[in-house]
Amino acid sequence: MDSFESILIKNGYVLTIDPKRRILPKGNIRIEGNKITEVSKSPSNDAELVIDASGKIVMPGLIDTHVHLAQALIRGCADDVSLVDWLKNYVWVLQGNFTHADGKASAELCMAEMIRTGTTGFIECMIHSRYGFDGIAKSVEKIGMRAALSKIIMDSTGYADSPDIMYPGMVESAGDCLQETEAMLKKWQWDANGRIQVWYGLRSLGAVSDSLFKQVVQLARKHKTRMTMHLGEVPDDVRYVQENHGTNLVGFARKLGLLGDDMVFAHGIHFEDQEIQELAATQSNISHCPASNMKLASGFAKVPEMLEHGVPVSLGCDGGPSNNTYDMIREMRLAALIHKPRVNDPTVVSAEQVIEMATLGGAKALGLGDELGSLEQGKLADIILVDMRHLNLTPNTNPVSNLVYAGSGNDVDTVIVDGKILLRDKEHLTLDRDAVMVKAEKHAVDLIERAEVEIEPKWPIFD
Amino acid sequence: MDSFESILIKNGYVLTIDPKRRILPKGNIRIEGNKITEVSKSPSNDAELVIDASGKIVMPGLIDTHVHLAQALIRGCADDVSLVDWLKNYVWVLQGNFTHADGKASAELCMAEMIRTGTTGFIECMIHSRYGFDGIAKSVEKIGMRAALSKIIMDSTGYADSPDIMYPGMVESAGDCLQETEAMLKKWQWDANGRIQVWYGLRSLGAVSDSLFKQVVQLARKHKTRMTMHLGEVPDDVRYVQENHGTNLVGFARKLGLLGDDMVFAHGIHFEDQEIQELAATQSNISHCPASNMKLASGFAKVPEMLEHGVPVSLGCDGGPSNNTYDMIREMRLAALIHKPRVNDPTVVSAEQVIEMATLGGAKALGLGDELGSLEQGKLADIILVDMRHLNLTPNTNPVSNLVYAGSGNDVDTVIVDGKILLRDKEHLTLDRDAVMVKAEKHAVDLIERAEVEIEPKWPIFD
Repeated sequence: MDSFESILIKNGYVLTIDPKRRILPKGNIRIEGNKITEVSKSPSNDAELVIDASGKIVMPGLIDTHVHLAQALIRGCADDVSLVDWLKNYVWVLQGNFTHADGKASAELCMAEMIRTGTTGFIECMIHSRYGFDGIAKSVEKIGMRAALSKIIMDSTGYADSPDIMYPGMVESAGDCLQETEAMLKKWQWDANGRIQVWYGLRSLGAVSDSLFKQVVQLARKHKTRMTMHLGEVPDDVRYVQENHGTNLVGFARKLGLLGDDMVFAHGIHFEDQEIQELAATQSNISHCPASNMKLASGFAKVPEMLEHGVPVSLGCDGGPSNNTYDMIREMRLAALIHKPRVNDPTVVSAEQVIEMATLGGAKALGLGDELGSLEQGKLADIILVDMRHLNLTPNTNPVSNLVYAGSGNDVDTVIVDGKILLRDKEHLTLDRDAVMVKAEKHAVDLIERAEVEIEPKWPIFD
Repeated sequence: MDSFESILIKNGYVLTIDPKRRILPKGNIRIEGNKITEVSKSPSNDAELVIDASGKIVMPGLIDTHVHLAQALIRGCADDVSLVDWLKNYVWVLQGNFTHADGKASAELCMAEMIRTGTTGFIECMIHSRYGFDGIAKSVEKIGMRAALSKIIMDSTGYADSPDIMYPGMVESAGDCLQETEAMLKKWQWDANGRIQVWYGLRSLGAVSDSLFKQVVQLARKHKTRMTMHLGEVPDDVRYVQENHGTNLVGFARKLGLLGDDMVFAHGIHFEDQEIQELAATQSNISHCPASNMKLASGFAKVPEMLEHGVPVSLGCDGGPSNNTYDMIREMRLAALIHKPRVNDPTVVSAEQVIEMATLGGAKALGLGDELGSLEQGKLADIILVDMRHLNLTPNTNPVSNLVYAGSGNDVDTVIVDGKILLRDKEHLTLDRDAVMVKAEKHAVDLIERAEVEIEPKWPIFD
């Protein structure tokens, strides 16, 4: 990790995303320690390291608010299959056979890709005991990203009417879940110079009992930490709360105390208008996952409506079998594209709005709205540089929409987190990319063999 | 352009896309002249050039069946605006101010991006006299791609009930259109070793009179060449044929003689089931343009239904203000993603099917179904290599779906067209990439100033 007393990023096309959304076409950012100390049209002083950002966008690091680190290793293992098939015959079987070494290999692969494509912070939504929370936290500490690591919370194997749906290796008890969360909170909360948070990762409606939901809400608020959970990804969620509680999804969440700005609901597809208004009123966060929602046929989240009502929306790449990448720039493009035909209006979910989701929205979801998500004096120095001198970005007439509609993570060339440089000239400084890839490939092959899962293209192989 | 007597591509993961869809995990392809002379598990002979394809997918080059070459220069010039605004205030005004030098600069930028991202052949759907057909054909000849170049055909300024909609600089007369097509057919048809075709590019319903439609159908068949046109992109198309002909889109096309395997309809969104059956029966080609259809809120083409009925479907990236890239791998991903939630089935439009669209479907649209689109002995040597050793493609468990769901054009590292190498190790061999980019940027800036169009982000600029 390259560490400098002070860094000056000069002459970049700076998207501050500050309250006025100012753009400085030849702007300068000064970093001292882990903070931004200057955002200006002309730089005041020199610095230990000067980075020339000519031809590059300088912007806040992207924040992925719904990541399964342990699914990078099973990327592409369940494509074009039904959701039940996806879960029961592939994802759960593979993840139910994970070792802690698999978990670490997957997390490091995932972080390598996120850094390479401009993500500086993320919310890992549910770390199972099989993946090894402690080892993953150590990798985050070493590699240098900002992360909320959520311990999976569950006490049931699925919806009440299909109790046997979950693969045995994936089941955990409430006691174990809560105990590990307590231990990890003690060990890691705000560690690594404040980069690491420990959250409660409530699995999903069918996998958590009402009493456990209530208990976790109390514990999270007692420990002043936060929660995330899958909500409204599948129509079954709507049916479940209707049958068991006679209400809709948000009504259920209200009843159990789950609403609030300390909650990040992932997916959030199957809401009615009135529910969207209540999400806005309580400032409950939604992590919108466009690629995953398309690939698993989950549906179209009502993002234009949520934005209109003021729901805090951020973006999530979800996982390797549902996306299948962890590239937030490609995710921004998808978020900007897919809602326009549904509402028959090409002006909704604009390039500017998806950038806000990926930065400010992500910071708010992380609980760091005042400290992160924009380039302003005093804020944390999580910054990326995107080189616009690529064929796909030429000409660069409107850099903002160009980034969203024509850019991809490949165009990112520098990544700074907490004032430290993690990527420079597209090269990782805090991990050995080739070693991470070789290790991940090996672990994937071993895992698939161990789990006895067959994964092949639909076309015949002649070898 | 690197030219060799014989090329042997060794040890690649070969997607033949032959009638059996065979995959050779360690396969070899031998090229002599412009043809594939061997596809085998073990290579017979040595060759003048041997390319090691270990860790790479070897597959037929991708074919983009709906390209506006002249829109690369106006990439990102009209984002998040309504369709009328998009046309009247941006795209037509800019394109109506094109010079031939702009047309050439844009075509070369577009081809550079297509080659870099794995496209070997394309259909340019409508070359206006302002863009300079002859100059563009010379660029295609020099740069080495395979292309159908369609001369724009029109004699009206828009739908009958809005005659003044088109920017004056974009209007052409039937006489001029037909005359230039004749001249270009004489000069370029099957030139450049057969790489270049000259087609009729019927603009769209409102811009072509019934008599001109009929005349062009006769001429195209007389000259044994082919046609393409925009059809069913906007709901206005449906209204127009209903009001003027009392029929639906395909009924109209039948009446005017437009159906057949020598026609490529671009977009093809607003069809009913019965129309889809007739498209299949006549083997009329559809160029599906997912990114464009999302960005302009045009709607969801019924691709699962078209595939089920046997309509020949291929893929098109459309243009710089509607996509905004020319990356067929990203287009394949989008095509595989967006239809699943509409029909509530994650198994439709599979990775395999979108690869077929981008290869076999493209070859058929080009009228080269027997000579192109798969790796088989005797077929034309249009081949790409995709390096799977990238973070976003690790682990590479199922290379076929991995390419579609996690790949992007950036992962392409070698491109061969007609037996000649156009890209090697991600570097262009037949054009100077940096010079193309600098020239395009300059032409874009000049054009925007000349056309007096204002293009800026929505956020305030402080300079």
